[in-house]
Amino acid sequence: MSKRIGVDLGGTTAKLGVVTEQNEIIERKVIPTDKSLTFEETIAVLSEGILSMGDVGIVGFGVPSSLKPVSDIVIHANNLGWKNKDLRGELKKHLGNIPIFIANDADSAAVGEFFQGAGQGCQSMLMLTLGTGVGGGFIYQGRLYRGGNGCGFEPGHMIVQQDGVVCSCGLHGCLEAYCSATAIIREITACKKSLILQDMIAENDGKGNARMLFDAVRQDDRYAKSILEKYIHTLAIGIGSLTTILRPEIVVIGGGVSGAGDLLFDPLREEVKRTTFSYDVIGGAAIIPAALGNDAGIIGAALLDRVLI
Amino acid sequence: MSKRIGVDLGGTTAKLGVVTEQNEIIERKVIPTDKSLTFEETIAVLSEGILSMGDVGIVGFGVPSSLKPVSDIVIHANNLGWKNKDLRGELKKHLGNIPIFIANDADSAAVGEFFQGAGQGCQSMLMLTLGTGVGGGFIYQGRLYRGGNGCGFEPGHMIVQQDGVVCSCGLHGCLEAYCSATAIIREITACKKSLILQDMIAENDGKGNARMLFDAVRQDDRYAKSILEKYIHTLAIGIGSLTTILRPEIVVIGGGVSGAGDLLFDPLREEVKRTTFSYDVIGGAAIIPAALGNDAGIIGAALLDRVLI
Repeated sequence: MSKRIGVDLGGTTAKLGVVTEQNEIIERKVIPTDKSLTFEETIAVLSEGILSMGDVGIVGFGVPSSLKPVSDIVIHANNLGWKNKDLRGELKKHLGNIPIFIANDADSAAVGEFFQGAGQGCQSMLMLTLGTGVGGGFIYQGRLYRGGNGCGFEPGHMIVQQDGVVCSCGLHGCLEAYCSATAIIREITACKKSLILQDMIAENDGKGNARMLFDAVRQDDRYAKSILEKYIHTLAIGIGSLTTILRPEIVVIGGGVSGAGDLLFDPLREEVKRTTFSYDVIGGAAIIPAALGNDAGIIGAALLDRVLI
Repeated sequence: MSKRIGVDLGGTTAKLGVVTEQNEIIERKVIPTDKSLTFEETIAVLSEGILSMGDVGIVGFGVPSSLKPVSDIVIHANNLGWKNKDLRGELKKHLGNIPIFIANDADSAAVGEFFQGAGQGCQSMLMLTLGTGVGGGFIYQGRLYRGGNGCGFEPGHMIVQQDGVVCSCGLHGCLEAYCSATAIIREITACKKSLILQDMIAENDGKGNARMLFDAVRQDDRYAKSILEKYIHTLAIGIGSLTTILRPEIVVIGGGVSGAGDLLFDPLREEVKRTTFSYDVIGGAAIIPAALGNDAGIIGAALLDRVLI
């Protein structure tokens, strides 16, 4: 039987996987993505890697960019240095008639969790990825929601605080500006009162990371606790608003920050009850950690044909 | 040919209309909804009114409440004094086998605008109704979006300002708390510095209304201008966030406040460019005034069978 291949395209590597009909990765390959290569060169290297995996029946791509509807033009993949690139057209030159499916990388990860991870058995699932940014994907009636005009779903740039902190996108007060790992690093770095946090940062050559916040909370540092409380409050507002608008059955939380486990999830579940419209009457969505880690993107990419119309 | 009837159910009246296959109202009836009647009595009176309109082929209801999925239980229609009422079951006692379709009233109005008003010709449309509250409906791929779990769509209770003004729903900082007509009345009433606004309110027996704000702006009142500027800014943030999440082709604005015309729409269209993620690259949705006024709810209710799955 011909192979189903998923490609999770990132700024430093492309992760390829052969995915079975049971949604499991049985073969892997990692290809460095070198920003010094041209778009055409990168696609040539990628295509060679894909074809080397054997009898390819179908291939799906998760791309770190918004995409133009229908044409699948990559609007701007900053990490890859691609702007307005015809990914489908360029791939076709190498892959010929192999069916190609393309989606945003956060959407692909959501698709992976939906079929093989935390979302198994539901029909509508919101996934938020709390990493360098805040990404997300939404599955509605078993299909990937790509927006009414096909331009995709960007929950990280919903504004939760008018005229708030400047976001990487240029807007003020986006969810991403408060709930990414980057935002946590900003807050712990600025928190000079916490000797515990400052020691951790100093010991790491002056570089903070999100895990330090949770480590400091475990050490009962009150400044860290206050930062975490605010973080959870804002994240709950984001989840509450998204639940009020989309009404997913479940909310899956992935990305590096979700590794904090109960320290994040227990208070988050409580706080969301206070930030979701009519929670006592309508109820909310179950909030569940992602299950697949980095494999979600590969698996989801390989299964895109099942969720794209 | 048997008749298609739409019922727009409100706190003081139920507006009934016979709607043609060309989506036009050709016959009307208004039935007072008296809160002193029981639920069962109200349904009996309504059903009698419906049946008196002749050969009824199909009937649709827009109801001022969230609804439980599938069963169409009215969760809480505050204006009617209904809580957890089996609307479909009670109607069936009177209407027998006539097909019955039920949706939220703001959803019904969106359906009306989609087929016969500002949304004609598009496939995805967000409607916001700026009235006593902020309601809304979303049409996605030609169908009414009712939420992943079927509990409906409540854009008015998306939080745009964490820990902001208390909303009628009990949450803090909802779009409704800033962008309803009620919010405008709160702001102009509190604005003691504006003699123009305070005179208008005094002349109206101490009662403010949203129109006064726009009248004062036309008279060049700087306090009124400042209130309107803030109003538009917050509304633009709400529309920007909803556009970033849903990516509708168009945004239709209805309700009393939308009657302000260009004084609202011109600056709103400009402001939304500054509050929508990646507006310069992806673009935004066209912002258009609703076209049908109060008829949207009747027409939409009559056509619910076309948009409910």
